[in-house]
Amino acid sequence: MSSGQGVRRRPIAQLQAGERVEDQVYRLAAKDLRTTSNGSLYIHAVIADATGQMTARLWQASQELYDSIPEGGLLHFRGRVENYKGSRQFIIDAVRQVEPGSYDPADFLPATSQDVDTLWEEVKELLRGIRHRELLNLVGKFVNDPQFVADFKRAPAAVQLHHAYVGGLVEHTRNLLRLARVVCPLYPQISPDLVLAGIFLHDVGKVRELRYQTNFEYTNEGQLIGHIVQCVLWVHDKCRQIEQESGQPFPAEVEMALKHIILSHHGKYEFGSPRLPATGEAIMVHYLDNLDAKLAMVREAIAADTDPASDWTGYLKALESRVFKPNVISGRRPGPQTD
Amino acid sequence: MSSGQGVRRRPIAQLQAGERVEDQVYRLAAKDLRTTSNGSLYIHAVIADATGQMTARLWQASQELYDSIPEGGLLHFRGRVENYKGSRQFIIDAVRQVEPGSYDPADFLPATSQDVDTLWEEVKELLRGIRHRELLNLVGKFVNDPQFVADFKRAPAAVQLHHAYVGGLVEHTRNLLRLARVVCPLYPQISPDLVLAGIFLHDVGKVRELRYQTNFEYTNEGQLIGHIVQCVLWVHDKCRQIEQESGQPFPAEVEMALKHIILSHHGKYEFGSPRLPATGEAIMVHYLDNLDAKLAMVREAIAADTDPASDWTGYLKALESRVFKPNVISGRRPGPQTD
Amino acid sequence: MSSGQGVRRRPIAQLQAGERVEDQVYRLAAKDLRTTSNGSLYIHAVIADATGQMTARLWQASQELYDSIPEGGLLHFRGRVENYKGSRQFIIDAVRQVEPGSYDPADFLPATSQDVDTLWEEVKELLRGIRHRELLNLVGKFVNDPQFVADFKRAPAAVQLHHAYVGGLVEHTRNLLRLARVVCPLYPQISPDLVLAGIFLHDVGKVRELRYQTNFEYTNEGQLIGHIVQCVLWVHDKCRQIEQESGQPFPAEVEMALKHIILSHHGKYEFGSPRLPATGEAIMVHYLDNLDAKLAMVREAIAADTDPASDWTGYLKALESRVFKPNVISGRRPGPQTD
Amino acid sequence: MSSGQGVRRRPIAQLQAGERVEDQVYRLAAKDLRTTSNGSLYIHAVIADATGQMTARLWQASQELYDSIPEGGLLHFRGRVENYKGSRQFIIDAVRQVEPGSYDPADFLPATSQDVDTLWEEVKELLRGIRHRELLNLVGKFVNDPQFVADFKRAPAAVQLHHAYVGGLVEHTRNLLRLARVVCPLYPQISPDLVLAGIFLHDVGKVRELRYQTNFEYTNEGQLIGHIVQCVLWVHDKCRQIEQESGQPFPAEVEMALKHIILSHHGKYEFGSPRLPATGEAIMVHYLDNLDAKLAMVREAIAADTDPASDWTGYLKALESRVFKPNVISGRRPGPQTD
Amino acid sequence: MSSGQGVRRRPIAQLQAGERVEDQVYRLAAKDLRTTSNGSLYIHAVIADATGQMTARLWQASQELYDSIPEGGLLHFRGRVENYKGSRQFIIDAVRQVEPGSYDPADFLPATSQDVDTLWEEVKELLRGIRHRELLNLVGKFVNDPQFVADFKRAPAAVQLHHAYVGGLVEHTRNLLRLARVVCPLYPQISPDLVLAGIFLHDVGKVRELRYQTNFEYTNEGQLIGHIVQCVLWVHDKCRQIEQESGQPFPAEVEMALKHIILSHHGKYEFGSPRLPATGEAIMVHYLDNLDAKLAMVREAIAADTDPASDWTGYLKALESRVFKPNVISGRRPGPQTD
Amino acid sequence: MSSGQGVRRRPIAQLQAGERVEDQVYRLAAKDLRTTSNGSLYIHAVIADATGQMTARLWQASQELYDSIPEGGLLHFRGRVENYKGSRQFIIDAVRQVEPGSYDPADFLPATSQDVDTLWEEVKELLRGIRHRELLNLVGKFVNDPQFVADFKRAPAAVQLHHAYVGGLVEHTRNLLRLARVVCPLYPQISPDLVLAGIFLHDVGKVRELRYQTNFEYTNEGQLIGHIVQCVLWVHDKCRQIEQESGQPFPAEVEMALKHIILSHHGKYEFGSPRLPATGEAIMVHYLDNLDAKLAMVREAIAADTDPASDWTGYLKALESRVFKPNVISGRRPGPQTD
Repeated sequence: MSSGQGVRRRPIAQLQAGERVEDQVYRLAAKDLRTTSNGSLYIHAVIADATGQMTARLWQASQELYDSIPEGGLLHFRGRVENYKGSRQFIIDAVRQVEPGSYDPADFLPATSQDVDTLWEEVKELLRGIRHRELLNLVGKFVNDPQFVADFKRAPAAVQLHHAYVGGLVEHTRNLLRLARVVCPLYPQISPDLVLAGIFLHDVGKVRELRYQTNFEYTNEGQLIGHIVQCVLWVHDKCRQIEQESGQPFPAEVEMALKHIILSHHGKYEFGSPRLPATGEAIMVHYLDNLDAKLAMVREAIAADTDPASDWTGYLKALESRVFKPNVISGRRPGPQTD
Repeated sequence: MSSGQGVRRRPIAQLQAGERVEDQVYRLAAKDLRTTSNGSLYIHAVIADATGQMTARLWQASQELYDSIPEGGLLHFRGRVENYKGSRQFIIDAVRQVEPGSYDPADFLPATSQDVDTLWEEVKELLRGIRHRELLNLVGKFVNDPQFVADFKRAPAAVQLHHAYVGGLVEHTRNLLRLARVVCPLYPQISPDLVLAGIFLHDVGKVRELRYQTNFEYTNEGQLIGHIVQCVLWVHDKCRQIEQESGQPFPAEVEMALKHIILSHHGKYEFGSPRLPATGEAIMVHYLDNLDAKLAMVREAIAADTDPASDWTGYLKALESRVFKPNVISGRRPGPQTD
Repeated sequence: MSSGQGVRRRPIAQLQAGERVEDQVYRLAAKDLRTTSNGSLYIHAVIADATGQMTARLWQASQELYDSIPEGGLLHFRGRVENYKGSRQFIIDAVRQVEPGSYDPADFLPATSQDVDTLWEEVKELLRGIRHRELLNLVGKFVNDPQFVADFKRAPAAVQLHHAYVGGLVEHTRNLLRLARVVCPLYPQISPDLVLAGIFLHDVGKVRELRYQTNFEYTNEGQLIGHIVQCVLWVHDKCRQIEQESGQPFPAEVEMALKHIILSHHGKYEFGSPRLPATGEAIMVHYLDNLDAKLAMVREAIAADTDPASDWTGYLKALESRVFKPNVISGRRPGPQTD
Repeated sequence: MSSGQGVRRRPIAQLQAGERVEDQVYRLAAKDLRTTSNGSLYIHAVIADATGQMTARLWQASQELYDSIPEGGLLHFRGRVENYKGSRQFIIDAVRQVEPGSYDPADFLPATSQDVDTLWEEVKELLRGIRHRELLNLVGKFVNDPQFVADFKRAPAAVQLHHAYVGGLVEHTRNLLRLARVVCPLYPQISPDLVLAGIFLHDVGKVRELRYQTNFEYTNEGQLIGHIVQCVLWVHDKCRQIEQESGQPFPAEVEMALKHIILSHHGKYEFGSPRLPATGEAIMVHYLDNLDAKLAMVREAIAADTDPASDWTGYLKALESRVFKPNVISGRRPGPQTD
Repeated sequence: MSSGQGVRRRPIAQLQAGERVEDQVYRLAAKDLRTTSNGSLYIHAVIADATGQMTARLWQASQELYDSIPEGGLLHFRGRVENYKGSRQFIIDAVRQVEPGSYDPADFLPATSQDVDTLWEEVKELLRGIRHRELLNLVGKFVNDPQFVADFKRAPAAVQLHHAYVGGLVEHTRNLLRLARVVCPLYPQISPDLVLAGIFLHDVGKVRELRYQTNFEYTNEGQLIGHIVQCVLWVHDKCRQIEQESGQPFPAEVEMALKHIILSHHGKYEFGSPRLPATGEAIMVHYLDNLDAKLAMVREAIAADTDPASDWTGYLKALESRVFKPNVISGRRPGPQTD
Repeated sequence: MSSGQGVRRRPIAQLQAGERVEDQVYRLAAKDLRTTSNGSLYIHAVIADATGQMTARLWQASQELYDSIPEGGLLHFRGRVENYKGSRQFIIDAVRQVEPGSYDPADFLPATSQDVDTLWEEVKELLRGIRHRELLNLVGKFVNDPQFVADFKRAPAAVQLHHAYVGGLVEHTRNLLRLARVVCPLYPQISPDLVLAGIFLHDVGKVRELRYQTNFEYTNEGQLIGHIVQCVLWVHDKCRQIEQESGQPFPAEVEMALKHIILSHHGKYEFGSPRLPATGEAIMVHYLDNLDAKLAMVREAIAADTDPASDWTGYLKALESRVFKPNVISGRRPGPQTD
């Protein structure tokens, strides 16, 4: 066990300009070897943990030192926090390797600001609103699977588009279930049971499609099969399992309608849905999913924006637009942010 | 005043097989001259009023009689209701012309099944939730304009896609405001005031884009300018009017953000939006609008479907799909319907 | 048992102008009530069986007679074959109902001109070329399932695009396996085992996607799930079954690569593939499938063409073109054909 | 007033290799800190004024000096012009800050090579060809507004596609009016009055859509509303103003047809036009606008090209092509150009 | 020679209501057998010649008579012109066959209202503006080829989109040359010689792509090769011919630039251009061609419109819009027209 | 003749770590001036010949030395091969210029690993299968033209998509002819003669479209006309030549069908085909061409891949996907490769 474990943890989001840091572990998110005006070398870096990231500099560097630092890996840092052009900047005095196994790299990945246990409890609470016995049974096959729950609570909702952080999937799912709870009563012809089950299950394939232990990336199966079909296969297996356990056939049309929601929830062929929504429930899941995802993109783009001089974020491909940052009602404009 | 006025009105939706009809005014929605197996001519027609439509036949017809009946016009009908292959069918014994001016053709157009006054009251009630003074003032310029209110309560939401009936616009608007009321609290970063005002105003241009007195069609201005830009012009004029009355400038950024919601609410250039949503509020209005419109298409397609032998409606271009009709949870399948 | 059974069967393709037909069962593929120049009614119809179709007329008809004949149903026909403007035409003297159950409507659907048992034997022979033990085992789960084999030998390859006839799927599959046998040796980096198994399994979902007993149409599941995902689910189930029987895990990467071939074989998102080909084997299956399907469309369009005056067939949407009929090498032009 | 003002102005386009420059103000269009082969630092820069731009180098630089020079700002330069590989290059001996307010940054933006006053006079002269009284009146509301005229004469026609320089809008407008004058007589069914007014007004929104004082960029309103709708709103306001002044309604169909020209002049939804051209006049404005814009892109791409070794410019996204530079009739190829 | 030849020709455009027609040859553009209210049959037809078309009726018809009249063929007509609901209608008393060879069916095809010889003279006059010797020589190879000239003067510019009438190609070409003459001087960097030659030659392939003797249709080569490549091949052959005759190479870059204009003049790949315009001359030919073609569509759509009750023509696919008919400047609306 | 010629040639693919290289000529494919950790400069380079490429470093460099080395040019290299992180790396001790004319730069371009003479012999052998006399004659006009054969054997099949190396065109053509030989017998309705001739000729335009002496790039004619039309023109000229020599017309429909294959072989307008395949032969050439090209892309992407840690290559635009590298049947994964 590394001695670093005994040190009080200073999350990056809480570091103050002027503060000294004696021994903290962060992730080296990026590194770059540069030359100063007098010809000496320095490393320009980005350090990160679950709470955020910060620019860092290590003066008097060498090519050898630079090569010895693993990009993406964890390191012990000693140094101080300066104020540079209005932003915090970490001046690295020394780094040393982290003893293998002493830290979980996943703790240094971006993570939801919300408590995942609370999110998960709310998800379960909202799912209890399902009255259809078999659908509730099916949902239970996932909710009561400890491995699934552990994965589901860690998985991001995407690699980079929205909710792309540890816990993002459970947060996104909770949001959608909340939406469904208030929207379904306005459309009596829609079955809330199918919508609730569809929302919970529509993205569970991401638990398998993505790897999210030390970084976010697609698994081979994620790329060759895709989370939509992985999800349908998973639901399929659970239905068969229920049939075996109960000795009763799972209602075929219910299973079919649920799979249809999953298969069509991207809403367009070019987004990887092999079917287009053909039921009210599929349409509702598709639009609620989009609403929450797009609003998350807006919120995240504004939060990540680093140019206080502009009223606009950079271009977001998924929106085919930049995002306008000011709140015109309150007159509030996003304040200065560190780069 | 036509003598027909004294007769008790028998809405088409209430006519029973076996019932005799002595003198009722309906709209002749369609007509066709056909030949029977013995060579005589008969007219195959569709009669309609605000409550629905029914197949009708007039035996022993002639080309002259056929030519004398105006398609789309109103007529007095005498006849009886038969049962034909499980559906109601009207056997016309006689028709006679309606005295000009004695009936309002609009009363025989398809109309919302809900009470427009009640819908309008709810719209007004929901709009009272706007707290921003100038936005509330702007909305008031429409709400307190009797001519606008009269038109708004009559206008359909579209010529044929969804809510394509008298009162459809106020019904669709009410639905969206209801959605906003329950959805906005889930997204604190979104301004509910802009969303409510944006929803109310995003389609008011349809009052001018469409003609909906005796049938539904686009006005010239509707086709050359489009309801989106008409709507922005209307909001623009009202803002100027407020400025003149108050002597104060209307907050420029609020006006701009509101116009942006209107301009971008179709969400795609190819659907006639000259801008794409670039604020959270614009994104929310766009998706809520789509959600309600698409669910209305599903509901209307199932309601209009006339083939009980199929589990599917016909193809809907806007959904790029047919709609699956059965309710798989209840096991209920849409029952037999008249053609 | 109907007396018609004792009558020698006269396939439509073999009927000669001048021939009398005393009692033959055909399918009434289409019907239309028309008026002659002297005002009397006649029925213009199309009669069909597995070998082809022919225009037919029934003089001295009535509306009642017309109504009593079920479009798409089977009837006993009496009449004669005439020559009309260079084409054969059936003059109906009398029709009578077919005793329910005495004939299989499927026998009167369009069917492959080849022998399905021979096709199936060749398919099995070609599949024996698979050397990978588990893949061979998996293929065997289908080949040795009598219900599957019966369905597979009957299913069309599509509802209307290509090989849209009874036995079309086995014929198309045989063609693809033949192609693979000669093409694979030219590309040593490609696994012939994956290609052969992928070809055999890529379309088996059509057995479930389509109904093809009395006519060709999609099942509900076919429309909501689609044959591509149905196919993957089926393969998935068989892999699980093999695992249960053998107690050994099915090689995960082989299963994944096979599913990928199936999921991507349409080659484009807008054709319903949720994945695009990302392996050499998937690319090969995609192009061989297209090659055989498109050449079948050309052959079928020329065969079905009824206008000898033109060198071109009608427009084929799938080719975005009409097809040029003449064989420019032989100088042969498609001869006169009956309408 | 800076002493620099007394120095004779040496436009960049006129600088000769070998010339010494004692004190000239240029815009620092770009800067880059680089290392020489002996390890010392130098700045690689681009200097610019309204007449063109040139590569520049400052030897013996430091990070501090580099940081102190504002990219995009104005500076006094001392140095000399060298010949480097056949191109001119500015060797900077010294730079010093410009006294705030002593120079107008706009004078150093790229500008039309033509005289804007002459262009504007020709625009006014061509607009006098409008015979329709109200259209002429409407045009006059803009032509006689000094603030509008000042802006219109400065505005570029675009941020970067074509005529992207100070005065570009008036130059492009003049070109279009000239085109209309010669083309309209060939199409008698087209109203030249609508075409002339439509051309003049179709892009006036750019005066508000763009900022073009010290650099070219979109205003917030430009991005949220777009110049097309801004333009329609402006025309709308002027029509209302005319009505107020005259007490007469502005002819509604003329206003509508004019707005339609503006709304549809991009010709495609995906280029931001919410309507497609539906009148002969709108079609004519659309094609003439494209003709002049595309020919300007060709001319500007060839002028900006810096590779005399190639017969082709770089790829132009708007043309989906590179441009072939040689004049094949004269045999003339674009000569060597400075980078 | 048929006796009909001695009769004074009465063009359809000049027939007056009330006029008797003793013996006139027209084309039977369409025919339909219908039943009157008393059960007797009549033929509803459309008769046509180069000047226009008119509805016609033949009472007391029979199936045999109906069958004996060739649709699309020429007939002698006897009858009278009536006024029916405000439109002219031809009442046919008798028809008789036209002696084969006595009339040229082409004389009864739609034709330009202009004099083709005059158009052709103007084309030649405009082409004399080419100063480049070889280009002039190349153009002369076509202009001086009597067979080409005869075909060029007859060919339509398209089968149905625009200028789809005999002489349409020469009319469209004349228009484009006129445009080039006035537009080229505004763009000095463009070679007028290439533009003039490019315009003349860009569509000559249509002479071979289309058949236009008795109706308008594509030739086999037109469909398999396309007029764009046919045109390039033709120019290619003429260049080779010039080289053989002169013993001098044709300037390769001029030939290449000219072929490029032809290949790219449709401006988009999906319209069949294998190259996109990459020179100023190609861009100019592309936009002028579109301008004239689209304005012709507008003019022809308004002229062909038969619904005086609407301000809009039907939908035009090439414009993706309907056309607004009124002239808002003059206030003139298209008058009532015969159907 | 340079003394280097006497040195035994060491192809890059055969260089071993630890080996000394005294005097070898390679192409300097790329160069980059970098700074070491102690501030001195070094050159990071890539050296290449026909067999492959390797990273190289030259320590103690200067800007002057760097500037004196021509990127893309040939140099004599002295140095040694090291092992660096598992990959070979060339340490350059000295370079000197190559005497002009002493080496052919083309020998250092990427080249097919197969023997072009053998490929060409096989092409000729396969073409002898053509039985149609005129087609064989036409093919002979190319096969017997020494200049054509020399070019054809050198040309790459593309600039970068697939078979982008010297000899790539003959290799790709050989592959297609092999495919045709085995596939044609499965489709008796297809003319193998047209397919064989079409395959051989479909890409011969690339001989003229591309320049491939010292690097791969498009000729001006290649860019303005395109290899598809160049190819048609070439075939056209050869047909005319045959006609002149034989005094017989070349069969027009055969020529037309062959040109159609060439024009349509890209299969889509947006890929530059001005026609879409409308004959069975054109469809076959299109799909076989795609099959071989796409499989080559897969093979080349895997071969060029430099990241052994990933199971995926980089993204391939033409496949719209990355490629999965492992052979799942053999379990073999692509081994470590030099960067």
